[in-house]
Amino acid sequence: MKRIAILGSTGSIGQQALDIIRALPDQLQVVALAGDKNLKLLERQIREFRPKAFCSSAKPDIDYRGEFLSMEEIASHPEVDFVIVATSGKAGLSPTLAAIKAGKTVALASKEVLVMAGEIVVREASCHGVRILPIDSEHSAVWQCLQGEEDKAQRLLLTASGGPFYRYSQSQLAEVTPEQALRHPVWKMGRKVTVDSATLMNKGLEVIEAHWLFSFTFDSIGILIHPQSIVHSMVEFVDGSLKAQLGSPDMRLPIQYALSYPRRWPNSELPRLDWSKIQALNFEPVDYGRFPCLKSAVDAGKSGGTYPAVLCAADEVAVELFLSHRISFTGIARIVQETLERHRNTARPSLEEIMAADTWARECAMRSSPGHPEEAEQPSDLGRGR
Amino acid sequence: MKRIAILGSTGSIGQQALDIIRALPDQLQVVALAGDKNLKLLERQIREFRPKAFCSSAKPDIDYRGEFLSMEEIASHPEVDFVIVATSGKAGLSPTLAAIKAGKTVALASKEVLVMAGEIVVREASCHGVRILPIDSEHSAVWQCLQGEEDKAQRLLLTASGGPFYRYSQSQLAEVTPEQALRHPVWKMGRKVTVDSATLMNKGLEVIEAHWLFSFTFDSIGILIHPQSIVHSMVEFVDGSLKAQLGSPDMRLPIQYALSYPRRWPNSELPRLDWSKIQALNFEPVDYGRFPCLKSAVDAGKSGGTYPAVLCAADEVAVELFLSHRISFTGIARIVQETLERHRNTARPSLEEIMAADTWARECAMRSSPGHPEEAEQPSDLGRGR
Repeated sequence: MKRIAILGSTGSIGQQALDIIRALPDQLQVVALAGDKNLKLLERQIREFRPKAFCSSAKPDIDYRGEFLSMEEIASHPEVDFVIVATSGKAGLSPTLAAIKAGKTVALASKEVLVMAGEIVVREASCHGVRILPIDSEHSAVWQCLQGEEDKAQRLLLTASGGPFYRYSQSQLAEVTPEQALRHPVWKMGRKVTVDSATLMNKGLEVIEAHWLFSFTFDSIGILIHPQSIVHSMVEFVDGSLKAQLGSPDMRLPIQYALSYPRRWPNSELPRLDWSKIQALNFEPVDYGRFPCLKSAVDAGKSGGTYPAVLCAADEVAVELFLSHRISFTGIARIVQETLERHRNTARPSLEEIMAADTWARECAMRSSPGHPEEAEQPSDLGRGR
Repeated sequence: MKRIAILGSTGSIGQQALDIIRALPDQLQVVALAGDKNLKLLERQIREFRPKAFCSSAKPDIDYRGEFLSMEEIASHPEVDFVIVATSGKAGLSPTLAAIKAGKTVALASKEVLVMAGEIVVREASCHGVRILPIDSEHSAVWQCLQGEEDKAQRLLLTASGGPFYRYSQSQLAEVTPEQALRHPVWKMGRKVTVDSATLMNKGLEVIEAHWLFSFTFDSIGILIHPQSIVHSMVEFVDGSLKAQLGSPDMRLPIQYALSYPRRWPNSELPRLDWSKIQALNFEPVDYGRFPCLKSAVDAGKSGGTYPAVLCAADEVAVELFLSHRISFTGIARIVQETLERHRNTARPSLEEIMAADTWARECAMRSSPGHPEEAEQPSDLGRGR
């Protein structure tokens, strides 16, 4: 019986993790839940799963006497073995480090944790002998393909659906509305990650995550556009052989694999690929030029230091500005790019320096937005970092 | 350093195995070679690799004082660790059993060994703690996908190129010439296996082999037509996830994997997949109706006993009759089918009973050929087994 804490239980990944736990009551038990804004849903989850502890922005209005704790306390709770980090933004970083220091197995769905602080998180996990398991479908695919391999692989090939606008021209991209961007052709996800998929920022963040999860250099992580999202990623070995992991585009599969690892559990609720309906799996090289967020992300990952944290923060602000109709779709890449260009990097940063870079980047990105009083003004105390 | 014997060194697989050994002289050493009819090539191989022992149908005409031994003696030679069985037809069966009894690791390229005597071979391997490693690209793919998996998989999906005639109508199939059948669109192989690929008999034999190699029931082994032969096979797990192994259609990859297992060795001579050129991987369910050899093979595998040996023998005779222009392409399936129908099965046969069934089937198949004096005569001592 694995005893589980879910950080971000009311989000898309959190809810799907609870679907898995609901289907496998003999193997999995909810010990703690942490939600945020959706208090009504958290209350329902608490009533159903009766966790020993919970965390939310406000005390739930239900007759239930569990412990009311912080995210860090939830993540290091003595009765928890396994922490699913499915928070949005940087909220998962500090609880992830708390879970690692308490020796819990961590399953990561939140991209920001490794993108912002990969070096620190990987070092702490190594010090405490803790495993970081991926939940993202691409990283889960790589991880599955690496099972049982004794020798370092040569190359990772992350697949990307390309999002809804992969065939759009620059002028078409400039006209994309938030409503269009929120309609992903394959995956059902939260709002931020859906927009990130459309800009391909999401794939760039995944490259940085893959670098930290699997210790591959950026030059040995490739991207292939694969519109059907059936091949979730591939690994190429030194002898020219490749392995790919395939499955229906349903996040419950990688969530369950992280929970069942190193076993696999039958679960009739999970969808099967129907080969009578799959006629072709298509692939094409990615076009970095048309999706500058992808290039910005990979460059930020290669530069390291505080750049990836700045990337995350600027993107979060820019996506929010786009969703509230204040900038265009192509404005997202522009704001991210400008913020990175204005940043002065700190190599091998501490957690405090990462958080300071995050705060700086948010302010800088906001100043870049149209209508902001300081728009186009160069902050006097910040030189060009690159 | 692995010390290797190759049975069938002058055949297609044997020559490619020597290519791998030539490229990796620090890991691999040829200790013994066994060829058959191509004495000139065997002489060249002996001059190059200076094996301690060799076997051939006649003594080679070269100044070399290695031991001249039988195939069984080669397979159980005290200085050999690893035996590659790449003979054609049933010739590999007895030496494979000799290798197993002598505790050698056996890498199997010869389909007949497991198809004819899978139960005996698997039992002997288990008794002697010997590993049977597959060299066929499909079985190597399955084996690679199963690495590191703790739980029994749900289903194997063998891919099939479909051969050169997959879109042909029945009347077009009847007109196929040996010259056409020997031109495989993707793989370069020996004559018998190339014709077997065109009738899909080859895929049926692979289903029987997969049954014995991986202990899967026939109902849990599926076939997918995949014309590009890039995905070499797939495994579906109980949680709905699949793994596939991919690579250029080049037999040197699975040969090297068997030799390097559980490691993987870099080898710059092996081809790489070029993803800038792969636009689509196509799949479709197999049409058993149009390729009756496939159905005959799977049925023979399910029935077990001496049926699979009869299948192999009848097919070998029928392919030879086709290649010598004595029967049509569709006549191959007819002869195989008729021979199976005339056979009286022996369940759990001994090796002697398997060999007797082989002899009987060859005679029966020959009698079915046009122009044979006993054509269409029912052998009086053999009732219908099924």
